[in-house]
Amino acid sequence: MKAHLIFTGTELLLGQIVNTNAQYLASKLAELGIDLYSMVTVGDNRGRIAEAIKAAQGKSELIIINGGLGPTEDDVTREALADALDLELKETPQALEVCTRYFKKRGLPMPEANRKLGLVPLGGMVLDNACGTAPGILLRHDDTIYVLLPGPPNELTAMFEKEVIPYLQKEGKLSSEIKSRVLKVVGLGEPVVEEKVKDLIGSSNPTLAPTVKMGEVHLRITAKSADPADNQAMLDEMEQKIRERLGDYIFGVDDCTLEEAVGRELKKLKYTIAMAESCTGGLLTHRLTNIPGSSGYVQLGAVTYANRWKTRLLHVGPEILAAHGAVSPETARAMAVGIRELTGADIAIGITGIAGPGGATETKPVGLVYIGLDYLGKVEVFKHQFVGERKTIKYLSSQAALTHLWQRLKQYK
Amino acid sequence: MKAHLIFTGTELLLGQIVNTNAQYLASKLAELGIDLYSMVTVGDNRGRIAEAIKAAQGKSELIIINGGLGPTEDDVTREALADALDLELKETPQALEVCTRYFKKRGLPMPEANRKLGLVPLGGMVLDNACGTAPGILLRHDDTIYVLLPGPPNELTAMFEKEVIPYLQKEGKLSSEIKSRVLKVVGLGEPVVEEKVKDLIGSSNPTLAPTVKMGEVHLRITAKSADPADNQAMLDEMEQKIRERLGDYIFGVDDCTLEEAVGRELKKLKYTIAMAESCTGGLLTHRLTNIPGSSGYVQLGAVTYANRWKTRLLHVGPEILAAHGAVSPETARAMAVGIRELTGADIAIGITGIAGPGGATETKPVGLVYIGLDYLGKVEVFKHQFVGERKTIKYLSSQAALTHLWQRLKQYK
Repeated sequence: MKAHLIFTGTELLLGQIVNTNAQYLASKLAELGIDLYSMVTVGDNRGRIAEAIKAAQGKSELIIINGGLGPTEDDVTREALADALDLELKETPQALEVCTRYFKKRGLPMPEANRKLGLVPLGGMVLDNACGTAPGILLRHDDTIYVLLPGPPNELTAMFEKEVIPYLQKEGKLSSEIKSRVLKVVGLGEPVVEEKVKDLIGSSNPTLAPTVKMGEVHLRITAKSADPADNQAMLDEMEQKIRERLGDYIFGVDDCTLEEAVGRELKKLKYTIAMAESCTGGLLTHRLTNIPGSSGYVQLGAVTYANRWKTRLLHVGPEILAAHGAVSPETARAMAVGIRELTGADIAIGITGIAGPGGATETKPVGLVYIGLDYLGKVEVFKHQFVGERKTIKYLSSQAALTHLWQRLKQYK
Repeated sequence: MKAHLIFTGTELLLGQIVNTNAQYLASKLAELGIDLYSMVTVGDNRGRIAEAIKAAQGKSELIIINGGLGPTEDDVTREALADALDLELKETPQALEVCTRYFKKRGLPMPEANRKLGLVPLGGMVLDNACGTAPGILLRHDDTIYVLLPGPPNELTAMFEKEVIPYLQKEGKLSSEIKSRVLKVVGLGEPVVEEKVKDLIGSSNPTLAPTVKMGEVHLRITAKSADPADNQAMLDEMEQKIRERLGDYIFGVDDCTLEEAVGRELKKLKYTIAMAESCTGGLLTHRLTNIPGSSGYVQLGAVTYANRWKTRLLHVGPEILAAHGAVSPETARAMAVGIRELTGADIAIGITGIAGPGGATETKPVGLVYIGLDYLGKVEVFKHQFVGERKTIKYLSSQAALTHLWQRLKQYK
């Protein structure tokens, strides 16, 4: 089954709101195994909505139009559908009832403008609205199912789940189901990841699609089948193949974040951790403490922005700072070692760098970052050169620190 | 001038991501006085993208196609445009240069797959990409301007602002203009703010619209005129009226963040600051250090997650922790005083609370947060009860701390 989505709303065309309904409906259709052909957004204009409906005709068996069902003059989706199909609009008691019930429940009189919510194109079925005043409409016409759904997200989701999905099920329109799984990779660039799974990217079911996201590569596997068990098997099999090639670099699946993966390893190994941050300004500790239960392994985070705190708190030798500067491998190492000694944590990280936009010198450009890692006394320093604005450099630095840490946690145990 | 937007990306049709680019581009076009006719989303399919381009032809003078410019096989927007206009694609040194420069800067070899980023339809102009590898393309053909922009939001916005807007200006395509200004309020709830500007919300040009955003109320003024000076005057006049009523609560305008406003005051007063964070886990220090130049006033941030660090580093008396617990006004006060004494900073903040989901007791629910503020030796403690998940509580706690601090900075000087 193919579908087409039409969104109406001048506020969307003016960029006043983000269209989260689009993501909701698209993801629901994907789950139901309905192939979404395209999405269109038009303004609150009767002619243009009708035009969009006509343009979708013949290409899809399911055309969903979202928005424009309210009582104001701007709300013209009912009229546009009637125009597009050349049908008459008729006041329908069942539709009006959805609206009057809403006001009755609240002990309020129904405004006269709301009468038009009772209008339904001839042959249309009324969809109940559990959360608002506007009834939805479902209409079968020339082998196409037209569905009109309200704009407010809570009304939309309730109506889609309670009215539309059961209808499609009952009519036998739901055959196959789509299931996705995302494997998340760090420590390898996208080109290298792609090279390793190149042949799998050609697969048609399940499909495999890589995307890049701030220091991570995500591999999305998508399987489509009438049988949920088939989907499961396809996802498992593809995951297995990918893990054989990239296993050491996959830190998590689906919603798992890198800080969560690191936290899980720390917990498993019963290790504690301490952070000495300069250019990341607390972001690394913030990310680690976003994970519930992190108080079990996070000992102390020190944002030693001023040099004298690197010396006073972390005992970074003034001679190191004088000879190599605050942004140097020597300082990163001394920060990591210093906070580990101070706290007695099993693992410690020291980060120093130039987040910009100021602070660069001829030999030390913006984005130069050193990360020291003291892992049970084994100390390493990693050098990075990031590009971007201040916040990006902070984020990528924290991401790199988590990546090195995660890799060592997996490697050394 | 009329415009049409086409978004490409199977991940959009599967509902895997929210299309925030749509809002960005739509709002930018509105600001520029360009009438957006409709928006269409199609999958990463060469034929369908070309079909969408053809469908938009003749209806708009500006057709922007967003996404699908990367190096993978899925990225076929260049090819689709060439198909739709029946133009040849040609390797163009200027386009390839955008990509090679990116890799050179990072000292990395350019993967062979990226060569295709140098392809441009005959007659196309190359748009520079300040943040990524993929050059954009601008092409005039049969009285229509076609613009191809990259999908990653940071690359899109940089390219639109640095390349596309100047081009449209130079070509005299921008006529009547919409200008907005946002006044940002903290320390008052939305109902109170609305009550104070109730009569102004009825204004039609400029309009005034309040929105709520994580502890802030934003008042957006929007003016529309052919004459930029008119717009300026309308915005200034409305701002003046609002300031007369809410001046003490407005911390910033437009992109100004609360941490920026706080930083500006600290700088002006030549005050230094230190933070002792528990439940916020470094987020407060992270936010303050997001501001360029914050190294001038941020002395030290200590994330004393474990109680013994509250005692060892901040000298919070063990008897305080024993008698009142880590989440108490007494501890918040002792943390603020402790880090101020340790660092000698002018101002110090101590935050302790229960971010959840675990850690609550019968008398101390999730979301209970105490904020201690030591302002040149004058110490206050504020109590808050937030609702939400862990990250929300962390954020609202940091927001409350910044709000109290900002208010005191304005008040005491």
